This record gives sequence, structure tokens and C-alpha cells, in this order.
Amino acid sequence: MSNFLSKKLLSLNLNRKNKATSLANYKPFIIFEKLIFISGQLPFEDNKLKFAGKIDTELSDEEVKQSVYLSTNNLLWNLNDAIDKFKINRIKCINLKGYFNCTENFNNHSVLLDFSSNLLIKVFGETDGSHSRSVIGVNSLPKGSPIEIDGIFGILD
Amino acid sequence: MSNFLSKKLLSLNLNRKNKATSLANYKPFIIFEKLIFISGQLPFEDNKLKFAGKIDTELSDEEVKQSVYLSTNNLLWNLNDAIDKFKINRIKCINLKGYFNCTENFNNHSVLLDFSSNLLIKVFGETDGSHSRSVIGVNSLPKGSPIEIDGIFGILD
Amino acid sequence: MSNFLSKKLLSLNLNRKNKATSLANYKPFIIFEKLIFISGQLPFEDNKLKFAGKIDTELSDEEVKQSVYLSTNNLLWNLNDAIDKFKINRIKCINLKGYFNCTENFNNHSVLLDFSSNLLIKVFGETDGSHSRSVIGVNSLPKGSPIEIDGIFGILD
Repeated sequence: MSNFLSKKLLSLNLNRKNKATSLANYKPFIIFEKLIFISGQLPFEDNKLKFAGKIDTELSDEEVKQSVYLSTNNLLWNLNDAIDKFKINRIKCINLKGYFNCTENFNNHSVLLDFSSNLLIKVFGETDGSHSRSVIGVNSLPKGSPIEIDGIFGILD
Repeated sequence: MSNFLSKKLLSLNLNRKNKATSLANYKPFIIFEKLIFISGQLPFEDNKLKFAGKIDTELSDEEVKQSVYLSTNNLLWNLNDAIDKFKINRIKCINLKGYFNCTENFNNHSVLLDFSSNLLIKVFGETDGSHSRSVIGVNSLPKGSPIEIDGIFGILD
Repeated sequence: MSNFLSKKLLSLNLNRKNKATSLANYKPFIIFEKLIFISGQLPFEDNKLKFAGKIDTELSDEEVKQSVYLSTNNLLWNLNDAIDKFKINRIKCINLKGYFNCTENFNNHSVLLDFSSNLLIKVFGETDGSHSRSVIGVNSLPKGSPIEIDGIFGILD
């Protein structure tokens, strides 16, 4: 199916082929009343984790950037499925959480999560795309992923 | 008091005696409009932390599994208190967050959190029990706990 | 502008000058329906991170305590901006998340986050100020901050 979000994502070359299925016994999204909760997303591409390792010692800057993009892409395509299923016309980005698998010396979390925040604003525009967020450094993530991102979105219409 | 959840929990041998009181100055749950937020739950039994240590080096597989079950059990009994207090008849599981105290080499988070997710689905059924979730590895938790789990639930009726 | 919260904060010597601007491309708060999400707050004072380092090895007890106070202060002044902007008369504290940058041996998270929880209850009173929460130890935070705190609040009136 095609909707306002899938059209926008494809126009930005954010391709659905990257979307991952759930790793385990949970749903990619849950809608309750006007809130959409998206599960933690990893940098999967074609159902495989594309990057693994610590972001400040084992991955290049470019690989880290791609990891943030892929995780955000998966977040957006899961959101697109929610939009399709419930015939949603307009979304407000509410909250993003970024978890970075890094060493204890890493301190550049905010700059890296901006690759995700900037993309959300590009997709939804400043008014609907702007959001609150938190970002933390963690010592491990599922399957050795460098990045995990989850989010909460609101149904405006 | 007895309600649909306490009956189900007792039928699954999930015993209330395991429920922990709050460690500090916070509430085990807060209800706001149709949302129920449950505070982070540790593997307490009889008001004592039953397991402590890193899940991949200091605890056996069985101890880790029991830690996930106990934390989930405490989550469910706190939810039961909310149900009792506000005479709730039906719950939707919305979101689960799992925090695992582990080394940086651990990467099996998803499989372990399934012990919690599977239990929620067993208790509430597939429709109401399925949920979104995120899981991360952290370097420490309160009192050296191996596991912490919190959750958001919705009131359907 | 002056409202019930700013008056209370100033009466407790919680001074607005400490409030930090956002580090990157996100909003300090988002309101959606009756919920207010506040972004992760660091111990900024006069737009500079006042403390950096691991809480159990690189900061004194007093510095850690001040870090929790400053982060909570910033949370409260961002909440105050939301209250001003949307002419809110009454707030319910719902959920707090505390992220502590510490070593893997640290286990005193709950006691430290009480500096934040106690302050919320002092500001809003027991009924509106009490909240659910989770606290975890992480291996790094943005800019080397020792503490990050975010929160969800509800609009009662």
C-alpha cells in the first residue's frame, strides 16, 4: 500500500528492503489510543544485522552514520506499517531514545543521534517531526549491534 | 482481593509472596488517564534481591532465567495492585523495557527477554499480551541486580 | 512569565539560570494530548556542563548530589516552559528515568535518584509529585556527563 509516509520515504531513497522483522516474541509496533510505540530498532538490512561492534573503536565514522540511518529507516518503515494498518493521515514525533554501544570514553552521542533526528524532521517537517529525546551509552546491545533506537509517535489525524 | 489477573497469576504458580516493595521514594505504579506505568522491577523474592551479578559471567543460565521470571512476576503483581485499586477489567500490554547487567561481549539479550514476553502473552493472551519492547545491556543496576524490567500498560475496560 | 511552578521553584532557590539549551536537533519538551515528555537532562549550569566523569570514582559524593539536583532543576525549568506556553494549571508526575554514568561495581543508584524524586515531591506535593521510575547504570553519557534524567508528566488541568 501507499500512503503519505511511504511516498516520502521512497522519495528520500529510504528503501523498505532494509526493514527487519522482529528478533523475538514482540511486535514491531503497538498502538494504544493516540500513541504509537515502536520497538527498539537495529541497523538491519535485508533481515541481517549490517554492522556490529563498538561505535568508537570498531566501526568507522561512516559505518556508525550508516548504522544510525538504517536503524531510523527501520523505525520509519515500522511506523509506515502502523499508518497503513490504521489508515492514519498525520503523525507527530514525540520521543526518541538512542542507545549507543560504545566504550566508556565515548562522549559524542548527541552529534550521532542527530543523524536520526535530522531525518525525522526531513520526513515529517519541522512542526510534526521535532521531538524530545534521550541518548545514552551502553556496554552491549542485542547481537552486538552498535545502535538501537526506539520511539513514541502520536496520531494527529 | 481477587480479580481476573490475580486468578490467572495464581493458576500459573506466580506467587504474590515474591512481590517487592519499592526500594526508595517512588511508587510501584502510576496511572494517568488510560496508561499504567510500572517502575523498574528487580528479581526480588520475599523482599530480598534473590540474584546479583553479571548475567553472562556470574550467574548460571538457570539463575538468569529465574531472574527474568521474578522481575516479570513483580511487574505483574504491581499491575495487579493497580487493577484492584481502580477496578480495571481488561489490560493491554504496550511496552516493555529490559535492562541486562552484563559484560560487553554479551549479545543474547533478545532470547532472554523472551522469558518475560512469553509470560505476558501466557497471562493476557496473544491479543492483549503482545507488546513492543527494547532491550539493552548495561554495566550496572541497583544493588547489583542482573535484571531490571519496566513496562507501560493500557486500560481497555 | 510567572506561574505556580516558577514561583515554587524560585521559593526553593531552584534558579532558572541553570537551565540548559538543547545540545542538538531536538526539543526540550513535547506535549501530546495530556502528556508532556521532557528530554534527557544533564547537570548544566549557565549553559555549561558543570560536572563530568564517573560518579563512583571521579566525583565526590557532594558533586554527584549536585549533579542530580542540577539535572532535576533543568527538567523542572523545561517543564515550567511547557506550563507557561500552554497555560497549564496542574501537573502530575508520571515517570522518571535516571541514567548514571558509573563503573560496573556501583550499586547505589536508588539512593542517589532519591535526590531527584524527593525534590519532585517537595515541588508538587505527595499526591501530584509521586511517580514511577527506573534507574540504570550506563558506561557513558553525552559529553561525559555523570547523570542524565528524563521524565513524563501529565496535565491535570
